[in-house]
Amino acid sequence: MLNFEIIAQKGKARAGLLHTNHGVIETPVFMPVGTAGTVKALTPDLLKLLGTQIILSNTYHLYLRPGMEIIKKAGGLHSFINWNGPILTDSGGYQVFSLNKLSKISDDGVSFQSHLDGSSHFFTPEKIYEIQEILGSDIIMPLDECVPWPVSYKAADKAVERTTKWLSRVAQKERLFGIMQGSLFKDLRERSAKEILDFDLAGYAIGGLSVGEEKSKLWEYTSFSVDLLPDNKPRYLMGVGMPEDLDYAIGQGVDMFDCVIPTRLARHGTLFYKNKEKNVSSRLNIKNSEFSDDFQPIDSSCDCYTCSNNFSRAYLRHLFINREILGIVLMTIHNVRYLIRLVEDLRKEILNGTTAPNG
Amino acid sequence: MLNFEIIAQKGKARAGLLHTNHGVIETPVFMPVGTAGTVKALTPDLLKLLGTQIILSNTYHLYLRPGMEIIKKAGGLHSFINWNGPILTDSGGYQVFSLNKLSKISDDGVSFQSHLDGSSHFFTPEKIYEIQEILGSDIIMPLDECVPWPVSYKAADKAVERTTKWLSRVAQKERLFGIMQGSLFKDLRERSAKEILDFDLAGYAIGGLSVGEEKSKLWEYTSFSVDLLPDNKPRYLMGVGMPEDLDYAIGQGVDMFDCVIPTRLARHGTLFYKNKEKNVSSRLNIKNSEFSDDFQPIDSSCDCYTCSNNFSRAYLRHLFINREILGIVLMTIHNVRYLIRLVEDLRKEILNGTTAPNG
Repeated sequence: MLNFEIIAQKGKARAGLLHTNHGVIETPVFMPVGTAGTVKALTPDLLKLLGTQIILSNTYHLYLRPGMEIIKKAGGLHSFINWNGPILTDSGGYQVFSLNKLSKISDDGVSFQSHLDGSSHFFTPEKIYEIQEILGSDIIMPLDECVPWPVSYKAADKAVERTTKWLSRVAQKERLFGIMQGSLFKDLRERSAKEILDFDLAGYAIGGLSVGEEKSKLWEYTSFSVDLLPDNKPRYLMGVGMPEDLDYAIGQGVDMFDCVIPTRLARHGTLFYKNKEKNVSSRLNIKNSEFSDDFQPIDSSCDCYTCSNNFSRAYLRHLFINREILGIVLMTIHNVRYLIRLVEDLRKEILNGTTAPNG
Repeated sequence: MLNFEIIAQKGKARAGLLHTNHGVIETPVFMPVGTAGTVKALTPDLLKLLGTQIILSNTYHLYLRPGMEIIKKAGGLHSFINWNGPILTDSGGYQVFSLNKLSKISDDGVSFQSHLDGSSHFFTPEKIYEIQEILGSDIIMPLDECVPWPVSYKAADKAVERTTKWLSRVAQKERLFGIMQGSLFKDLRERSAKEILDFDLAGYAIGGLSVGEEKSKLWEYTSFSVDLLPDNKPRYLMGVGMPEDLDYAIGQGVDMFDCVIPTRLARHGTLFYKNKEKNVSSRLNIKNSEFSDDFQPIDSSCDCYTCSNNFSRAYLRHLFINREILGIVLMTIHNVRYLIRLVEDLRKEILNGTTAPNG
């Protein structure tokens, strides 16, 4: 099951409900990333406490380790990792290309060597779907070719062609999203959109952005791409997660996001906070000596466990400098909650400023 | 405030209540170690959930980093680290000797160079007390000289002499325990006990064990040392924490323990479990391939968060092999809870098998 309903709109922005096999997701939604079957440093209980509604896991990583046999025996990914909420799994394609210099792509699929042990593997659209079916994913992404920026028109054109061809081989399956490619070429985006919309899929993702282009281009092409997608299906902007990007893209009508940014930045001591003077999201680096005797929370307006329980910047700096795991845990909690709350607040604004759906 | 009352006895074993400035501790008690102001990987809330009543922190480490100025500004250690339960701080002497090859000991105190930046420092008994007073420790340990095993009689004799002399310089202070030394020489232990008992202190620790000697000697000298201590004061066996040692020592009348073992073993994937056939505590190493498809909890009789929420050995192994922080968190939870519960169970046995106190 994967059904979407829009319950409110404000300009191009929408608030909706996405019904999945593991519960209802309120959109717009930010999905924390759990690459290897864990959102790094967080227990499932903490994830729930932070307002996490759905996590993203990586097909490529889980396929290689622990491998499908073990996950099958465990009764699927939810059971293996002890997360009873919805899970979206990506197609693995992006990882195959970014982690494997020796990967070879053909119209049939993609061959690659494991970055862990060098073993050889071949992903086809059918196999990628089957893996995610075994994982028990609530939202399944098809094998696609995501080209980085900069890229030639010709290569971007070929990637659109392959992405469509691969999609066509599994398009009758359940719980499947389509992925739009086309890089920073508007005619290719139009073509890709037209082709994937030929299949009546559960949702549509905007791929091929946040892959090296400038922020102004990310925004321009987000807006352009959203307008090519139908109103009545969820729209997922892949790999995007800076606060200002979420703010902008939700205003443009995007419903779903994922990004490793909040967890990765936390592990490097970089923390989001609200700059009240400028009324924007800013970042601080906890390593800076100015925080050594700063006994404020990271963000006094934040409701996360870390900020609301008086864990001070000075203590977090102390933990970070001592390479203490607790520091990573407390800072990850903050950064993830910061983004989830930002999206929750934008959703409330949409609900409060409601105009009639599609009106 | 630091008052002790015995509420039940069974043989030599006792159950008591230790009243501190931050609450009452039920003894016998196991104290998890938070070297740098954090029990590694655990939030204060998790510590409470595991039944932690008191933590131990290291004077030496905190003095060097973040330093006393910051902790003073924070309003003390409890406030800095966000732990509102009791804290025992050690004397720092053990760390000075074990982490500093260039430390120099004299009757006046000990000079050493920081293992962090090479800076020079000098600890006197008065300074060590003062540091712990600024930390706001509920139980303060005096500067002592703890010699490793093997050691000559002469060196052990000198260590007893210094330990007593140093103690005498602060013995009128509050919340202070005495530390017995004497290594594996019974006459030195007798002498040390006699000398420290001349001061009416809040409690007495057995030092100089678990420093390289065989387990049979640890047990023999634990029993011998306990018998030299008064009934009406808490007895603290320093640095001891294997399940069988806790079991034995509680039977001998020890009331307090600390050890880095459960947290350190967890970080290396070594986990306690109850071997039901042999009715003893055993250990398993989660790295072993036999656990790759073992979907049982670490210990099916354990009530910790990890075991009671179906985090399987297979999943923990997966996390450990992927060096995921969540694995360390979940395994630390288990190991700490395992020891705390073992002590809780022994306390219940003492309460159930009560004979009249001192009877």
